[in-house]
Parts: sequence; structure tokens; C-alpha cells
Amino acid sequence: MSRSFSLGEIAQHNSSSSCWVIISNKVYDVTEFLPDHPGGAKIILKYAGRDATAAYEPIHPPDTLDKNLPTSKHLGDLDSSGASALQKEQESRKKTRDEVRVEQAQARKPPLNQILNLRDIEKVARDVLTYKALAYYASAADDETTHNENAHAFSRFFFHPRVLRRISQVDPSTTILGINSSIPIFISATGLAKLGHPLGEANLARGAGRTSIIQMLSTYASLSASQVAAARLSPSQPLFFQLYKPRDHALAAERIREVEALGYRAIVLTVDAPVAGNRERDVRAPFELEAQEREAAGGQGGEMPRQPERVDEDLEEQINLNGTVGSSLSNADLDMTFTETIPWLRSVTKLPIMLKGIQCVADAVLAAEAGVDGILLSNHGGRQLEYSLPPIEVLYKIRQQRPDVFDKLEVYIDGGVCRGTDVLKALCLGAKAVGMGRPFLYAQSAYGEAGVVHAVRILQREIVLGMRLLGATSVSELVPEMVERVDWQPLPARL
Amino acid sequence: MSRSFSLGEIAQHNSSSSCWVIISNKVYDVTEFLPDHPGGAKIILKYAGRDATAAYEPIHPPDTLDKNLPTSKHLGDLDSSGASALQKEQESRKKTRDEVRVEQAQARKPPLNQILNLRDIEKVARDVLTYKALAYYASAADDETTHNENAHAFSRFFFHPRVLRRISQVDPSTTILGINSSIPIFISATGLAKLGHPLGEANLARGAGRTSIIQMLSTYASLSASQVAAARLSPSQPLFFQLYKPRDHALAAERIREVEALGYRAIVLTVDAPVAGNRERDVRAPFELEAQEREAAGGQGGEMPRQPERVDEDLEEQINLNGTVGSSLSNADLDMTFTETIPWLRSVTKLPIMLKGIQCVADAVLAAEAGVDGILLSNHGGRQLEYSLPPIEVLYKIRQQRPDVFDKLEVYIDGGVCRGTDVLKALCLGAKAVGMGRPFLYAQSAYGEAGVVHAVRILQREIVLGMRLLGATSVSELVPEMVERVDWQPLPARL
Amino acid sequence: MSRSFSLGEIAQHNSSSSCWVIISNKVYDVTEFLPDHPGGAKIILKYAGRDATAAYEPIHPPDTLDKNLPTSKHLGDLDSSGASALQKEQESRKKTRDEVRVEQAQARKPPLNQILNLRDIEKVARDVLTYKALAYYASAADDETTHNENAHAFSRFFFHPRVLRRISQVDPSTTILGINSSIPIFISATGLAKLGHPLGEANLARGAGRTSIIQMLSTYASLSASQVAAARLSPSQPLFFQLYKPRDHALAAERIREVEALGYRAIVLTVDAPVAGNRERDVRAPFELEAQEREAAGGQGGEMPRQPERVDEDLEEQINLNGTVGSSLSNADLDMTFTETIPWLRSVTKLPIMLKGIQCVADAVLAAEAGVDGILLSNHGGRQLEYSLPPIEVLYKIRQQRPDVFDKLEVYIDGGVCRGTDVLKALCLGAKAVGMGRPFLYAQSAYGEAGVVHAVRILQREIVLGMRLLGATSVSELVPEMVERVDWQPLPARL
Amino acid sequence: MSRSFSLGEIAQHNSSSSCWVIISNKVYDVTEFLPDHPGGAKIILKYAGRDATAAYEPIHPPDTLDKNLPTSKHLGDLDSSGASALQKEQESRKKTRDEVRVEQAQARKPPLNQILNLRDIEKVARDVLTYKALAYYASAADDETTHNENAHAFSRFFFHPRVLRRISQVDPSTTILGINSSIPIFISATGLAKLGHPLGEANLARGAGRTSIIQMLSTYASLSASQVAAARLSPSQPLFFQLYKPRDHALAAERIREVEALGYRAIVLTVDAPVAGNRERDVRAPFELEAQEREAAGGQGGEMPRQPERVDEDLEEQINLNGTVGSSLSNADLDMTFTETIPWLRSVTKLPIMLKGIQCVADAVLAAEAGVDGILLSNHGGRQLEYSLPPIEVLYKIRQQRPDVFDKLEVYIDGGVCRGTDVLKALCLGAKAVGMGRPFLYAQSAYGEAGVVHAVRILQREIVLGMRLLGATSVSELVPEMVERVDWQPLPARL
Repeated sequence: MSRSFSLGEIAQHNSSSSCWVIISNKVYDVTEFLPDHPGGAKIILKYAGRDATAAYEPIHPPDTLDKNLPTSKHLGDLDSSGASALQKEQESRKKTRDEVRVEQAQARKPPLNQILNLRDIEKVARDVLTYKALAYYASAADDETTHNENAHAFSRFFFHPRVLRRISQVDPSTTILGINSSIPIFISATGLAKLGHPLGEANLARGAGRTSIIQMLSTYASLSASQVAAARLSPSQPLFFQLYKPRDHALAAERIREVEALGYRAIVLTVDAPVAGNRERDVRAPFELEAQEREAAGGQGGEMPRQPERVDEDLEEQINLNGTVGSSLSNADLDMTFTETIPWLRSVTKLPIMLKGIQCVADAVLAAEAGVDGILLSNHGGRQLEYSLPPIEVLYKIRQQRPDVFDKLEVYIDGGVCRGTDVLKALCLGAKAVGMGRPFLYAQSAYGEAGVVHAVRILQREIVLGMRLLGATSVSELVPEMVERVDWQPLPARL
Repeated sequence: MSRSFSLGEIAQHNSSSSCWVIISNKVYDVTEFLPDHPGGAKIILKYAGRDATAAYEPIHPPDTLDKNLPTSKHLGDLDSSGASALQKEQESRKKTRDEVRVEQAQARKPPLNQILNLRDIEKVARDVLTYKALAYYASAADDETTHNENAHAFSRFFFHPRVLRRISQVDPSTTILGINSSIPIFISATGLAKLGHPLGEANLARGAGRTSIIQMLSTYASLSASQVAAARLSPSQPLFFQLYKPRDHALAAERIREVEALGYRAIVLTVDAPVAGNRERDVRAPFELEAQEREAAGGQGGEMPRQPERVDEDLEEQINLNGTVGSSLSNADLDMTFTETIPWLRSVTKLPIMLKGIQCVADAVLAAEAGVDGILLSNHGGRQLEYSLPPIEVLYKIRQQRPDVFDKLEVYIDGGVCRGTDVLKALCLGAKAVGMGRPFLYAQSAYGEAGVVHAVRILQREIVLGMRLLGATSVSELVPEMVERVDWQPLPARL
Repeated sequence: MSRSFSLGEIAQHNSSSSCWVIISNKVYDVTEFLPDHPGGAKIILKYAGRDATAAYEPIHPPDTLDKNLPTSKHLGDLDSSGASALQKEQESRKKTRDEVRVEQAQARKPPLNQILNLRDIEKVARDVLTYKALAYYASAADDETTHNENAHAFSRFFFHPRVLRRISQVDPSTTILGINSSIPIFISATGLAKLGHPLGEANLARGAGRTSIIQMLSTYASLSASQVAAARLSPSQPLFFQLYKPRDHALAAERIREVEALGYRAIVLTVDAPVAGNRERDVRAPFELEAQEREAAGGQGGEMPRQPERVDEDLEEQINLNGTVGSSLSNADLDMTFTETIPWLRSVTKLPIMLKGIQCVADAVLAAEAGVDGILLSNHGGRQLEYSLPPIEVLYKIRQQRPDVFDKLEVYIDGGVCRGTDVLKALCLGAKAVGMGRPFLYAQSAYGEAGVVHAVRILQREIVLGMRLLGATSVSELVPEMVERVDWQPLPARL
Repeated sequence: MSRSFSLGEIAQHNSSSSCWVIISNKVYDVTEFLPDHPGGAKIILKYAGRDATAAYEPIHPPDTLDKNLPTSKHLGDLDSSGASALQKEQESRKKTRDEVRVEQAQARKPPLNQILNLRDIEKVARDVLTYKALAYYASAADDETTHNENAHAFSRFFFHPRVLRRISQVDPSTTILGINSSIPIFISATGLAKLGHPLGEANLARGAGRTSIIQMLSTYASLSASQVAAARLSPSQPLFFQLYKPRDHALAAERIREVEALGYRAIVLTVDAPVAGNRERDVRAPFELEAQEREAAGGQGGEMPRQPERVDEDLEEQINLNGTVGSSLSNADLDMTFTETIPWLRSVTKLPIMLKGIQCVADAVLAAEAGVDGILLSNHGGRQLEYSLPPIEVLYKIRQQRPDVFDKLEVYIDGGVCRGTDVLKALCLGAKAVGMGRPFLYAQSAYGEAGVVHAVRILQREIVLGMRLLGATSVSELVPEMVERVDWQPLPARL
């Protein structure tokens, strides 16, 4: 039934008046879709009349085209001579400097048993990730001050460890929105896990399943919600769904019904990212890569480097509201409110609701009044507003100023968590559990599913050890009196 | 009509008893002017009997000689053989190391679309500026502590961002002394823009016009007030005039009438610089340049380096009061007071009056009592008194101790502003707008008018984004509760 | 009587079903002992059927085998040809890079008279210690923050020195649990001194004797309690015994009776280490050594490096409770309490009791209520719970919040002490004396007994000098008013 | 009359039973003096039977031998052949590495007009001083924390500059104990100026005279009180005398009478140095020099380096009380008290009395009660008790806690002052003037008398400029409201 096309024919549809692209040897007419592409038309037009697989694949769930393009625009297949030409071109393509670097790093990465903590994992990940992927994962707003402070802030909290207590039996488990978790940690929502590892979010799902923790899937995951659900060890393995609410209520409701049907157990509405933050490391990545290749070519008329992609063009612009990218504006809901959006959300789902991105005491109070089930104190890993307070500081402020909030809903934090002691500090101050995003992205990028499992085991060991040394045998025994915010700044670690 | 002179004839007038100089192939007798030169006689005598164009041009408005030298001292032209000799000399002159460096830097500077923030612009400017120009622009008092702290201070202020607010429509505009500005930023007064770019302050005027912000022109600009007025996009484009009041009231009044006639819309009286600060980087520049050339010459009897100019001789000494430079003392008014100078200023102009250089709460209160329209909390970019408090700290103190001041006049700050978030912090604390000096000097030095426009657009994008992420849709919604002064010191950025 | 065995015969018993090892040319059957080895079976099995002397010797007191292995398992001697083969193998073994480095460092270490302070000693020790030994001595929990902060904290305490006081006669002596000490310092308990010097804890005993200070012997010393007692200068030289209480009360009581019989003068019960901390530097040491050797071999098929030992396998696992090392769990008492353990301890000994490892005010109060004679504010040199407060801070808190504690028991601190001024600060705040662990390990490692004596003399000189300059002639004149906790952070030393 | 001796004859008196030394070609019998030498016998015996000129000269005033050795021990002259042999030896001696370095540094030091501030001077001095001299000048107690903090502390004090005040006429002069000073600065007492420059303290005297400031002469100066008095520009030029009180009251009284007769105008009793601090940089200098020479010799049997002197042996031990140097104990008065020593001092002199070395509020109050005329808040430039508070902090505390002290006596500070703004901060907080020690030592070491004058002029310029920019026209207008102690730490200067 399906027609097949030659490269030559396809190449003629290389403009906004007729724009065809090849993805995995299939041919699509995206002309009419151009104005609706959340990432803008520009990035698609770069591949008009050409193969777009390499750019498309790592940052889109496989069902994206089905969802967004009518079947009539699925034109057919690339013919076999075209397919073999593309494959040949791909095989003969000279590796970029960055690809060579990554291959070497993969070859020399340490065995997992030498990975003692989450910093070790991150170090490996920074080696084996492509420049582009690392720039996307690591980037944060402006000068990355808030990102750095998220972690730094924990170093101001010290313990008052209690001794001579019975600690032979220690139980680090807890519940999160009523669901059991082996340790007070969940995988926080992050985008595009496939950038770091071909199996992407499936690594996280399987790792979470094997260690009995909960995964929160991002709207911007590189696998679809159903693929991630399918990757679970069993249908009872819990998943949460993180939602970027589109302006269109119906669309949002449909999305929620879809994940409900897939067995997701909570809706986590992101409230700190109606527009995307200013992540310069990410924006700068293509310039840097280009400069790198230029330098390698030595300026002597050598082969021109492949045009580096700007991951952010596809990615960030869809939620980028700075006035120049008109079309993307139409998607995100910039006018959510406590008084309207929360009741609406309650009306469309029976699942527990968590707000992700509460950043001050006042909004924690409003959230409690709005009756949500939980809040995730988070500044989006420092990727949104520079100089947003570190979540552990916001948590501390709620503890000081409005401890009643803890009675009304469950409080979580994410951002900057690296050690079991970080988790324990948050729990002492009132958090039910702690989310971790980048660390798990790094773990799956460096070691796949095994990396995720190893990361959880490290945290479990650190948490159990820390509870024993604090004199606590269950999370309920972690109390504010065990933590003190000191007035000095510890020296930076000299390891 | 005009006589013409040979180089030989001119060369005989090379002393304080008869001192002629050539500027742009014209010959002037400055003998009688020597004691009146605000920069001292010494710097002129260095060029007595010789061509002074290269030293004169970048630091004097073109109308300077007309204003200060009677027509009778405009002797005539350099003859054509002299002019061609000078040109030949100029062409054959070996470039200095610094000139070579600047040319190379100009060749490799990045395209404007890779400039993501104001730090990027400064980096380029530091490369392409001459050593001398950079020393003048970048220098600050003593060990430059206050200069550094101006910027550093912002890092102690964090946000309490508010979420779930309608932010689809955001308006960053404001008024400054009653005049509209597209964003809450104005170009603060700085001297000698021509040191960095041949078009100098005209770049600022056109950039401000294209982005609808206000330029405050310095008394020590390298273009005249009328030239800058003429450079505007339209006669309605607003300009402010910054005044260093001379001792002679009549002279000052005449200057004010002149700029009023040119359409300037406010008088900004500088109060923090009756004498010039101790800017050692600037003073040291000629020594450093000399050492650089000496090193290049290798000590082997090579060509002697051109004698480096001390830009500060012309510039600083005129307001330098340390007792050794008598003549310049006669110019500046060292005895201004709130009770006499302000009423006098009111009596000579109907324009709004802003005081630039208020540095403590007590003087802010006095200014309010004196009835001025606005104050600019400023320590002159750290160029005057070392250990003057950062303006954002003074603003914070006024907010804490005397919030009534904000009701009585408009408060502005300048110094150390680099990011949209810096601007938003100031506005939350009560500032109407924020002045920026060096950043615009750097922008026009690196990229001319386009650099100025790009800088404003960056700031606009950062401000709009920041307002959305703070949950504010207009400057009036930026309130003190959104900002907190933290008690720790963020880590330095590791970008 | 004793049989002798050939290497060949022994080599056949190389598994968990029959496991023989050679130690100092004697043959032992440890098959049945494997599950009881506090360090786990794995480390023994590594040497099954082989010579284990080099691994065994530096980390076990010589009476260990006698105590733990029935005589029937002392099989006999290695035959003479086997012994000479082992010796030959040992002699012909190529030195590792680390051994070569240590030899060179030993050759160039400075004479003792150029050692001016304890930092100098540590510097030498860091040079002359093996990588493995240094990793064990220097390691601390997690990122070693608490370890670093222990020392760092002292820099926040400044003096109010008093002048014009009679200070010709100064007496720095004090009593510790009623026993005289020439200066207010004792040798705190540390493990495995033989790792650093063949004479191990005997160096400490003799050094303490020669300078009239008290040594506290660790349960994990590498010499037995009786050997250390025998190393004293005289039977009246005081020793304290530090106890890790095993779960079995009878075993603990027997241990106490043993040291009482040997003349030990106090029981110091460690309360901060029911399980071992996470000391990554130590765990990482074998990987690092291996990488070092691999690098030296150059990857060209050179001789394989000797498999580096993990000191922690023998050492840490015996108190490591993280759930994977089941057998060791059975030894330590994880369920000690103030209300049960202290009364029990009182019931089995008449010696004074000190609790080592109190880390907060609340537990200091509980200790006072429990009626112990002294508490040692200590976080185990930062080796247990990361982010435990520095002991000097805990001391300061007790002084501020519960000064009555000082009336009820004697308070000591250890951790981070390096200078006489550190000691004086602690005494001003209420400590009776100060324990030092690592510094004495380093001293004996670098210079043996002479190093210990030199270290004490340096401290004595610094303490006497400091007392004179403070205006105090005895420890009782060191009062809280002489110390102030400042609110700034001194610059790091630039020596 | 005077006998002459051969080198051979002298060489036989090379032991403690008969000890002769040659100084400037004169022969002395110091056998009986050995036990009385304040620096200990050991250092003299090193030169027994030999020429000691090079070691003796830079650290003893010329009248030392006359004062301490009976005429009968002045044996006579070295004979001419001996003298010429010594001279030859001196001339042919190979220069040490350090001497070569110093010569090169002298050759390249910048002209004085390029010296813009006191840091510049120190930089030159650090280059041109011998290792030994620099070690003595720069050294401070222990890890030099207090020394560094003395300067660092000023960076926490910021100004509230006042504008719109009449500042055309500014007078920076003040009085110190009733004596006029052109600026509020005096030369604080420091030892051994001849180590840095052959003219030593005479440079300071002439520099002070030429700039109308006051010099405080140290008991340990390398010129005698009469030589310094004679070096003045006129008999009316004021000098203060700093006294280390010996135990013997009569001796002290005689010393005071002597300086009174020479016209000294105040007695400054040092109270913070009954024993010398632990200055390790100084003690370490000979080891370092030796290592330097050894390295230069390359270990190939080259010429042995000259035995480096320990300047501290002569110098420090005389006031070193740590129990090993018995004889020196007999000299210093370790039992001074407010209630006995001050009345006694009043009884022996009518001159104003200042106490140098007050380090806390309590002692400032006691000094006021004891009725002295002034106190110098000082910690001896950080050379005595490590962790003594910076003087500017003590001054601030007095201002906060006991401002009445300022009404009862004059308060001065020294330590860490480098800039005019430092001086102004101290004056705002209540100091009458500020002492500077090392900066003037460095100035005379680098540039002799001209360096001292230049240093004062720099300070004068900075003070006058600072007063103008603060809005103060006389020292009485410098008030506490103009200074604020901030709660953050400025970034280190990046010049």
C-alpha cells in the first residue's frame, strides 16, 4: 500500500511551502504542522527535504508523530537505494571530536563496584555524555547560582546526633502520597533521558522497580507514558505523572485520563515553569561544539564540521515565552491560579495532586488552603528563576514560620540532594521524602538500569547508616531538634 | 583668509612661553590657555610645537576648542607638506603591541547572536578595548573593593517567587521622572565613550532611541550635548543631563540653559565627586604599557616605544583636589550644600532634579527634605570613596529604616547591575528604575550602536522572564515581600 | 611435638571447606573461624592456603590468634624449605611504587629540631606513611566535611587577652578523672598504630610516660592491652581503656576486668560508633593503589601489580553494620541506652567512666543525669556521622545553654586540635582537658617515640606561652570571658 | 695605648672558658658577659675566637658594647694583617643565592613615582630585603592568623559618606598625647630597622621630621635612643620612647631618665610582650636559607654554604620565656600589674604614659582607671598571642560597650593599617590616631628616607581625599555614624 520515495524526490520538498522529512526511513509531510510545532518551525525546516532521524530520535517519544500528524501525512517509505545511501553516509561519516571523546570515556569508565557515592556517578556521566546532552542536563538559569546553592545550602545544616539509643532495627521506608517507598526518595521528573542512554526513562522505571521507589515521569520524557508504564517490573509498580498544563483544559484532561488509564498513581502539576528559564549553558552548546570542530579542522580547509544542533531549539522554545516565539505561546497555560486551576484539576481526576515548584512560605500556605495533597518545594533544579531560594531553606522557613503547613499536606523537596545526610536533614525538618532528578539521569546515562539500582543502594546505605548514627530507627523519629542551621560556612571539601 | 604654517615654524613654539599645537591639521596658540586647562598645563606641554590630534580627539568633544579658545588663537592651517608629513608619519608608525592585540581581538570577536548576556559583552569589550581605554573604563577607587562589592551585593538577595498567577500579559515599562521608559533601566552617565568607539556617545543615543530607554549624558562625555541631541532618532527622544557643578554659579546656570534649549529633560547633579577618587588602575596604565613595549623591544636598543599617555592627566586632574594641582581647584564647586545648592538649582531650571551619588540613609532623608525629584543611590561605580556601601544595600537600608522616603521622591540605583534579576531586586525594594553605566560603554565599544540595542534586548528578555517567574505582571507588582536578604554568601559562579 | 608442613600441602587448603593460613611461619586452620571473623570471611579466604603475614601483622595485636583460635587449630610450623622459599619470595619481590616513595620520603625527612609545630609533624607523616596507612588514618566520613570543620571551628574563637598580670609562674598541669597530667592534653583512642610504625602503640605509651600525660588505649589498637601496659615507663604510669562494647555483656565485663587487672585507670565507653562511618578515602585506597601500579606498568604487559589489600575489609567491616556483613552484626552492641548500659557498666567496674562521642547538649545533660564521671565531646574525628557539629561548638553550646553540666561531670573534647591556642580555647569554655588522636599517630609514624615526646613538648611550650599571653597562671584562671566566638571567618593561613 | 692582636691569638679564645670576639676590627673579651647576654650565650659562642661583625652589626645599637661591657674587656685592635685578612676573606667570599637575588631586585625596583600605595612599597621591600630580614619583619605568631586578620578586619567596616557639605578646606592634622601631628598617623615601635637599610631608624626619624609626624622608638631599635634623637631634623621634632620594662625598677628608671634627657616626649610601656610570641617564619628562616644554598650547591660536594644565622637567637630569646632559656628570664618584668607598675611609672616620669598592647575592653577600662594618658590597642602586629582580636574590632567593641573610655584617655590602634580609609575608619570609631609599624620598615628598607616621606605623602593624600568624600573637614568631624560594621565578607581584591 505504502508508496516509496527516492532521496531526489524528497529533496525537492525543502521549504515551508512544501516540507517533507525522513525519520527512520519513513517519509512525512510536515508542511501544515510547521506552525504548530512546539519547538518552532525553524528547527524542522533545517531538515526539510532531508533525513532528520538523528536530531528527532533522542528527544521525542516514538508516539509523537502518530499523535501530532494525521495519517494522511505519513507519506510512505524511503526507497531502498535511498535507505542504503543514508546508511552508507552515516557509516562513512567522520566522527566528531565529541563522539571520539565519548567513545574513549566509555572505554575507561570504572566498574560499578568502585562507585562509592553519587558524586562518583556524576563524574562518570560527565565523561560519557555527549557535550550536547551534558549541556542540557547540567544547565541551569543564568549564572547557575541557584543551581549551585541548592546543593550548597545543605552544608549549612548540621546534626545533633543522639547516642545510646536502640538502633539495631532501622526502617528507612516511608509513604509518598499514601504509596510505599523503600526509602524516602523518589525519582523526580526530568526530560529527555534518551539523550544520555538509548533506553532512557525505561532505565529509570526498571531501576525504581527493582529498588521499590517511585518514579515521577515528565511530560517532556523521551519515552511515552505508555512505554514507561510497559517498562515496569509489574503493573503494581507505582508511577507518578508530572504535568505541564497546556492552555487547553480539554487537552490537559485528556492527557490526565490517559495516564490514569495507564495506572499512574498521582498527578504532579508543575507550577514554576509557565515559561522556560534562561539556560545559557544549553543555548551555548552548539557554538561551543562548532568552535571545537573548527579548532580540530585547524582552519586548513579541512572537512567542514557537521552543523551542530541546538537542542534547545527543539526543546526549550516550546515553553519559551520571551515574545519572539509566537506559536509556542499558544500551548502552555500562563494563567493558572490557585483558585481556578486546582479546583479544575480536582474535577478531572481522583488521583492525589502534588504541586511541583512551590518556592516560598506564602505559596505553601496557599497550596494548603487550596487543598492539594502535597507540595514539592523545588526551583526546578535551578533551571527557572535565578536567585530562587534553595528548597532546603524554604523548608526550614516553613518549619520556623508556618509549621502548621506540615499538618495539612505532605511536603517534599528536590534540588541539590546528593548524600543520605541531605535526605535526613530534609526529613528532620519535616519533608516526607526527597526527589532527585539529575542524579538518576546521570546514573542511567553512565550505567543504564544498573546505575539506577546502584544509586538507590548507595542512598539506602547512607540513609540507614545516618539514621543509626543519629539515633533514629524510623523516619518518624527524625525530628527538627536533630538539625541546626549554623551561621558559618563550612570549607569546601578537599577530597 | 587663514594662514598656513610649516611644521618647522610650529615646532619653535614648544614651551610655556609660546605653546602651539596642531589638532586635525589646524594650528592653535594655547599659551594663554595653559593655566586654565582643567587637566593641567603639563599634559598640553607634552605636545607643545607638535601634533596633538591622537591625544586630543578621543577625550574632548569637538566644540571644546571653540568654547574655550578665542578665535584669535585659532591661528590657521598646517601647510600641505606638513599635513602629508604627519600622515606619512602616522602611516609608517610601527604599531604598538597593544594596537596589534586590539586588531586581532576585533578580528575574532563573536557574532552578536552568540552574545547571551551582559557578561559576554564585557568579555568582548575587554578584548577589543585599548589598554588605556579599558584602564579608564574599568578602574575604580583604591583596591576596587567597592566596585566589586557593588555587583557582589546583589548575590545576597534572593527571591520568594510566587506561582499560579496570571502572567500571560507582562508589562515591564515604567516612568522615570515622569518620562516613559520601555524597561526600568536607563543609561547612567559615564565619560569618554569615544575612547571605546569612534562614534562614542552617539551610539548610546541611537541605541537608547531604538529601544525606548533614557540616556543620561555626562558632563565629561566625549561628544557635546548638542551632538548627542542631534544623534537622537527624533527630537522627542528623552535625554537627561548630568552636571558637575563648577564653582561659578553663572557658568553652571549657562550650561543648564544650554541643555534645556537642546531639549534635555532632567538635570542630574552629581554630589559624590567634588574631587576625583583614587583610581590606581588608570594611573598605572601608562607604566604598564611602557613596560609592555619595553619588554617587546627586548632591551636590545630597539625602537623606543611611543610615550604612553596618561588619560587621567587630562581627565582626572581637573577634578583632582589633592593639593598639588592648583588650577583645577578653581573649577569644581567643593562647597555645595543641601540648603544652598538645591534651592539655587531650583531657581535656575524648571526641569526635574535628580541627585546622583547619595550613599546613605541620612542623605536620602535630607534629599527628600530638600525637595528634589529623585535620588540616584550610587557610589560612582566604586570610583570615588572606597568602602562606600553598595547601592543595593543602601536601598535596602532605606526600605528598612525610612520607607517614607519612597513616598517623597523617586529612588534609583546604579552600580554593579548585570542581570535582569539585579534590576528586579532593586525594584522589589523600592527603586523606580536602575541605571547602568559601564555595561553600555562596553556594549558600544564592542559592537557600536548594535551592541547597545542588543544589551537592552537581553535585559528586556531577562526582566520579562524574571517578572513572569516571580509572578508579577507590572513593575507595581514587584514588592518588598518578594525579596529576602540572606545571611550566607553564595558560591562564586563556576561557569 | 609440633608438626611441620610444606607449602604444597598447605596450598591445598585454599577454600572455605578447608582454609589454612601461614602467619609468621606458623600454620593455622581457620576453617571454623571463618564465620566468626569480625572482618568477614572474604578477607581471610583471599589468603587461604597461603602466607598471610604481611596482611595480618600490622592490624592485629599479637595475642589475637591465641584469644580467638583454639590451640587445636594451631597446626604447627611451616617447614624450613617453605620458610626459606617465602623469605626468598619476599626478598625478590619487586617493590611497589608506593614502597619506593615511602623509602625516599624516609630518607629526606627533616631532623626533629626543625619540626616547629604539629602541622610540621603531620606533613612528614603524610610523606612517610604508606598510601594504605595514610588512607586509614586520614579518612573520615563521606566528604570529610565534619573532619575539616572540627579544626576549622577553632578559627572562629578569638581571645580577649589580659595584660599586666603576674605571669612569671605558670602551671599548665591539670587532673583528668582525678589523675595528674602535666598539661591539659591526653592521647585519645585511635586504632592500628602499627600501620604507621612497627612499635605502634608502645611509642605512644613511652612518649606519654616521658612527658607525664595520659594515654587512652583503643579496643582496636594493634598491640594488646597487656603489651601496652608493659611498655609503660613504670607501673604507676596511668592508662585509660577505650571500650567498644560487644553485645555480650559477659564478654564486655571480662574485657573490663582484664584491663583493670593490668592497671588501667578508667573505662571510656565509645557511644558514637555502634556501626562504622562511611570512610571513602579508606575504601578507595586499594583502587587507587592498583591504578598507580597499573600506570607504572605502562600497560605493556609488564608484571602485574600485587593485589592491594583493602585495609577496611579487615578493619572496618567488623564494625560495619550496613546490612551486607551479617556476621559482624553479632558482635557490637547496637542497643545500648543511658538507662541500662550505664548502670550495668557501673555494676561491673569501680573505675571512673567516661562516655566518648557525646555530640549534642541534650546527650550531655543525659550523661550528667546518668552519673558518669566524664564525657568526651567527640565526633570520632569526623569518621562517623558527617555533619555532626565540631566538638568545640558543642562545648560552646553547653557553656551557653547548660553551664550546670560542668558542675556535674568533667567535660573533654577531641577533634581538630592542633595548636596550644586550640587547647586554651577549650579550657576557657569549660573543658578539663583535650584529647588528641591523629596528631599522635602521625608523630609516632614519623619519628617513633621521640616524635611523641616532641609533639607533647611543642604543645607544652605553646600552652605555657599562651597562658602567659592570656594572663593566666593556672588552668583554673582560664575562664569563658577570655574567649569570644566571632561572626566572621578568618582568612585561610597563607604560610 | 691599645694593644693589637693577631687572628691566631684571638682564635685560641674560642670557648666559654675564654671567649673573645672581633667586632669592626676591635677585640673584646666577653667571657664573663656570656651568662648575661639577653640573647643567650649560645649565639655568641658561635663566633668565639672569630670575627662577629656581620652578625652583630645589624641588630645592635652601636652603644651596646659600651653599655654592657666594662672598658677593661675592650682588649684592643685586630692587627693590620688580621684586618686585611678579614677584609680579603669578606671580599672573596662567594655571594649566597639570597645576596645575588637581593642585588638583582635592587637593580630592577621601580622608581618612587610609580609607587602609588603602601602595598606597592611592601611589594618592593619583599623583593629587596634579605630572606632573614624579611622573615624577621614579616613573621607573626603561629599560623599568622591574627596578623592577617588585623588587616582583613578593616574590610568589614564600610562608610556612610555624606554629600553636599563644604569640603574645600580640609585639615587632617591632630594631636597625639598633646603633640601636633600633620596627619593622624605615627610610626609605631618596631625593632631592627638596620636589618632592612644601613641607616635604619635614622631613616624613620628624618622621614617623620620632614612630614611632621611622630616616631615611636623601640627598645629593640638597632640605633640607640641618642643616635635617633641626633638624626632628627631639629631638637623640637617629637619622639616617643617604647619601653620593655626590665624586672629591675632602677634599670628601667635609668632608661627613662636617659630618654627624657634626650628630649623624648612620651613613654610607651609595652604590656603585651612579657615573653616573646611564637614566630615560626622567623625561626624557620635559617633552615630555609640552608636548604636554598644546599640546593644551589647541587649536592655535588660544592662549597658548603655559610652557616645561616638565626636572627631570633640574638633577638627573640632575650624575651623568650618558655623555660629553656634561663638567663633571659632575669631581664624582663613578668609581674607587672595595673596597680603597681603604673603608679611606679608615674613616680619616675612626668612624661605622658601610653600603654601599648591593650587587647580587650576590660583592660581598656582598667587602663582608664589606672589613669594613663593613652592606650594603644595593639596585638603587636599579630606577633604575640595568636587569635588576639584585631585592634579595629577591639576599638569597635569599646565604642559599643564602653564609650566612656574615650572620655578618660586617648585611644590609638595599630596593626593591619594600609590605606587612608583604614585610618579614617579608626578615627570615626574614636581613635585619636593610628600607628603603623611594618609599612614604615618596608618603606625605609626599599627606598630609605625618601621611602618614608613618600609613604606619609601617600597616606596624607588618601586621608584628605577620604575626608572630602566622607564630608568631613577635620578629624573631629569623623564620627561613629559614618562607619558601619557589615555582616558579609567582601571579595578579596582582584587587582
